[in-house]
Amino acid sequence: MYSCTVLHFVSKPCSPSHSRLLAIDSLQVNLAPDFKEKYFKQILDHFNYNSLGNGTYDQRYLITDQYWKKGNGPIFFYTGNEGDIWEFARNTGFITELAAVQGALVIFAEHRYYGKSLPFGKDSFNIPEVGLLTVEQALADYAVVITELKKELGAQKCPVIVFGGSYGGMLSVYMRIRYPNIVTGALAASAPILSTAGLTDSRQFFQDVTADFEKFKPACRDAVQGAFQKLNTLAQQKDYRRIQSAFSLCKTPSTPKDIHQLIGLLRNAFTMMAMLDYPYSTHFMGSMPAFPVKVLDLSLASAFILCRPTGIVYNSTGQLTCYDLYSLYVECADPTGCGLGFDSYAWDYQACTEIEMCYESNNVTDMFPPMTFTEQQREQYCSKRWGVVPRPGWLKTQYWGDDLSTASNIIFSNGDLDPWADGGIRKSLSPSLIAINIPEGAHHLDLRESNPNDPESVIVARKKESEIISQWVKAAMESSS
Amino acid sequence: MYSCTVLHFVSKPCSPSHSRLLAIDSLQVNLAPDFKEKYFKQILDHFNYNSLGNGTYDQRYLITDQYWKKGNGPIFFYTGNEGDIWEFARNTGFITELAAVQGALVIFAEHRYYGKSLPFGKDSFNIPEVGLLTVEQALADYAVVITELKKELGAQKCPVIVFGGSYGGMLSVYMRIRYPNIVTGALAASAPILSTAGLTDSRQFFQDVTADFEKFKPACRDAVQGAFQKLNTLAQQKDYRRIQSAFSLCKTPSTPKDIHQLIGLLRNAFTMMAMLDYPYSTHFMGSMPAFPVKVLDLSLASAFILCRPTGIVYNSTGQLTCYDLYSLYVECADPTGCGLGFDSYAWDYQACTEIEMCYESNNVTDMFPPMTFTEQQREQYCSKRWGVVPRPGWLKTQYWGDDLSTASNIIFSNGDLDPWADGGIRKSLSPSLIAINIPEGAHHLDLRESNPNDPESVIVARKKESEIISQWVKAAMESSS
Repeated sequence: MYSCTVLHFVSKPCSPSHSRLLAIDSLQVNLAPDFKEKYFKQILDHFNYNSLGNGTYDQRYLITDQYWKKGNGPIFFYTGNEGDIWEFARNTGFITELAAVQGALVIFAEHRYYGKSLPFGKDSFNIPEVGLLTVEQALADYAVVITELKKELGAQKCPVIVFGGSYGGMLSVYMRIRYPNIVTGALAASAPILSTAGLTDSRQFFQDVTADFEKFKPACRDAVQGAFQKLNTLAQQKDYRRIQSAFSLCKTPSTPKDIHQLIGLLRNAFTMMAMLDYPYSTHFMGSMPAFPVKVLDLSLASAFILCRPTGIVYNSTGQLTCYDLYSLYVECADPTGCGLGFDSYAWDYQACTEIEMCYESNNVTDMFPPMTFTEQQREQYCSKRWGVVPRPGWLKTQYWGDDLSTASNIIFSNGDLDPWADGGIRKSLSPSLIAINIPEGAHHLDLRESNPNDPESVIVARKKESEIISQWVKAAMESSS
Repeated sequence: MYSCTVLHFVSKPCSPSHSRLLAIDSLQVNLAPDFKEKYFKQILDHFNYNSLGNGTYDQRYLITDQYWKKGNGPIFFYTGNEGDIWEFARNTGFITELAAVQGALVIFAEHRYYGKSLPFGKDSFNIPEVGLLTVEQALADYAVVITELKKELGAQKCPVIVFGGSYGGMLSVYMRIRYPNIVTGALAASAPILSTAGLTDSRQFFQDVTADFEKFKPACRDAVQGAFQKLNTLAQQKDYRRIQSAFSLCKTPSTPKDIHQLIGLLRNAFTMMAMLDYPYSTHFMGSMPAFPVKVLDLSLASAFILCRPTGIVYNSTGQLTCYDLYSLYVECADPTGCGLGFDSYAWDYQACTEIEMCYESNNVTDMFPPMTFTEQQREQYCSKRWGVVPRPGWLKTQYWGDDLSTASNIIFSNGDLDPWADGGIRKSLSPSLIAINIPEGAHHLDLRESNPNDPESVIVARKKESEIISQWVKAAMESSS
C-alpha cells in the first residue's frame, strides 16, 4: 500500500507501521436486500408542456416487497440524491430493517440526471438539456412515481413515509411540505436545509470540520495550522519540487493555482474524514477506515497531518503511486469539492443553480487556509461553466427556509460529528417537527444498517425514529379508514 | 338597440319593449381607487436556468398605499387571473374597502401571459414560447414579487393576505398551501378547485346553470328544452335560412358544425347570465343588467328564451346588427367558451394543460342539448391546437385536490347562484379552512364593492371574512414580534 512520503518535508517519514493504520478494518460491504431494479416512464418536463420533446425519460428505481403487508403496510420511499441509487440502497440499511418490522414496501428512487436516470443519455449535461435538472422537477418525479406505483400495486391506501440523507434528506423535507397529499411523514437525516439556503454563517461548515478534530485531540488545530503554514512558506519560496515530493504529487506544481488546488484537496480530505467518521469501516463515497478522525495520529510531526488524510481519503486501497491534483479533487460550486463523471457534473449544476453553498475557511474560526467562495465567485464560476446565474434566496422562497411553522410530521436527525449538522434543524420546532441529535453520529449514521459497533446514541435515535414513524402510519391509516 | 328577432321562428317577436328590458340599468362603472400601474422585472422561467433566454419579463401590477399603515399594516395581494389586471381591480372593490378599515397596502398583480404581462409580446402564443404559461410559474411570480416588494417597501414584517376570485381564487388557495412562508391567509372566492382538478361529476356545471333558471321559474327547464328541440328540428330539416333569421345570424348556417357552434353560443349565454346574476348591473366579463336571470321573461314563447340570452350576453350595448357565430363565441378547451384575443389564447392553453374542465351537458340532468367534452376530446383538441397532451390528475397531484388536511388559513366563499360553486369547497374542513356560502350570491359577489342592492347574505359574508382576516393578521403580527 502506498503512503505519501514526507521525507523532504519533515524529518519523520510516513512509516509502514503508520500506513497500516490507514487500512480498512474489514472489506465488509453492506449488501442491499433483494431489490428489483426497474425503470419508470417519467415525465421529462413537469413544468412546461411545450419544451424539449414534451416526452418522457426512464427513471430508475429499486423496489422490494419482501416485507410488505400487501395493500396495507406503509410505503417507505427513499428520495434519491446526488448519485447512483444502488449506492444509497446499500448504505441505508435502516429502512429495510424498519420495513421488516413494520411490514413496509420499500422503494429507492433515483434522482434525475444521476446514476442511470439520465434524461438525454450522454448529452444530458449539454446546454440546454441540463436545464431540466432542478429540485422542483425531482420532487415532481417522486410525486408522480409514488402516485402511479400506488395505483399499479394496489397500494392506494398505504401511507407513504419518505426517507433521505443529506441532500436526499432535504428532498424528504421538501416532499412532505410540498406534497403532504402524497407523503405522510419524512425522516430527514443530516439535511442541511438552512445552510444550503444561505441562512447560516458561511464560516459554520469548516469551523465544524475543525471542531471534530479538535474534539478528538485539542492540539490538532495548531498542528494542522502549522502544517499549512509550512506548505505556504514552501509555496512562497516557489519550492515546488519539495512540495511535489512531500505530497507525492504526480506532477510538479508550478503555479499559485496548483497550490490552491492542493489546499482544496487537503481541506477536502479533512472534511470527508469528519463527515464519514463512522465507528466501523465503510464504503460510502469511497472507502473509509473506522473512526477516520482518530486514525489521524496527531502525535506525529505536524506536516504529517496533511499527508495522512490524503492517504486515508484518496488512497484507501493503496492503489495509487502518486496523487494527481486535478483528478482526485475537482473544484466546483460545492466548496467541499466535486468528483469526476456525470454525477459530479449534475451536482455542480445544482450547486450553481438552487443549492447554495458559499462556505468559506478563514484560518481564524477554522484550521484551514483562507479560501472563500462568495456569491460573486459563485456567480462568476457558474455563469462561465453552465451559462446560468444562481438565484440566492431561491430555496428559502420555494421551500420555506427556517419558516416551517405550517409544516408537520418531519424528523430532523443530525449527528454531532457531522459538519453538515449545524446547517440543519437542531431543535424541535413543534410536537411533529422533531429534532433528534446523535452525539456520536457522523453524516446520517442513523440511516445505516445496524452494526455491532454502533454507539448507544444511534441505537436510541433509531428506536425513537421507528416509534414516531409507526405512529404516523397508524394515524394516517385511521384517518383514511 | 338591436335585439334578435324570432319572427320566422315563433309567432311572437322580440318587441322593442322587451328589448328595453335588456338595457343596462345604469352605466355606473366601478372606479378603482388610486392605483399606480407599475412593472416588475420578473424571472421568465423559474424552473429552468437554461431555458429560452434565461431572462426576465415585465410583469404588470397595480399598487396603492393610500390606506396603508406603512411598515405595519398588512399587504392585501390579489392573485391575478385570466385577464387584464385592471378588470379585476375595478371589480374587486371589497379589497380596497377592507384595506381602508385594516390599514393595508393593496397590490393587484397581473398573471403572466394576460393583459400587458406578455413575456414575448405578440409572439407569446407561439410554440414553444407559450410553454412558460403554467400555474407553477404564475405562483412563483407572485412569490417572488411579494418577497421583493416587501424588501423594497420596508414591509418585511407585514403579513400578506391573498385574495382571488374564480381561477384567481384557485391561485390564492395554491399560494397559501404552496408558499405559507410568504402568505398568511387566503380568501378564495368562487374557486372551483375540485371541478378543475377532475374531482367532481362532469355533469355538475350545466346542471347548476339549469338549476339557477329553474329556481327563478320552474317552468324554465321545459321551456328551454322545448326551444332547443325546435332548433334541432329546424336543423334536421336543414332549414338553415329560418335559423339564420330567427337568431339574426350574420351568415346562413350551412353545416352541422355551424349548428353545434350556435348551440355552444346559446348555452354559453345562459351560463354567463347564471354566473353573473348580480343584483345590480355590472361591467365584468362584458356588461350585464341587474338580475339577468330574472330578465329572462319565461312567460314568453319558448323559442324566445334562446333569443333573449343572446341579446343580453352578446349585445348588451345594442351595437350589433347581426350575430357572427364564430367571433362572439369561440369554442375551446373551456366548455364555457373562450373569447377572442390573447387572453383567450392564454386561457385556452391553460385549459389544455393543467386546468381540467371536461364538463358536459346531456339534456337529462340539465336543460341543454347533449354536448360532451371528454378527456379524449380534450386531448385531441389540445394536441392539434397547441401541440400538448393534457395530464389529467395533475392539479390534484400538485395542489392536493380534496386532501387539504394539512392546509390552514383559507376562506372558501361561494355563492349559491354560481354554477362554479359546487366545484369548490362548500363545507368547512377545519377551524381554519372555512367555507362561507352566500345564498343570494353569484360568481364571487363578495369580492365586489359594497352596493345598495347587496343582499343581506353577502353583507354578512363580507363581515365574517373581514373578521377572520383581521384575526389572521393579528396572530401573524404577534407571532413575529
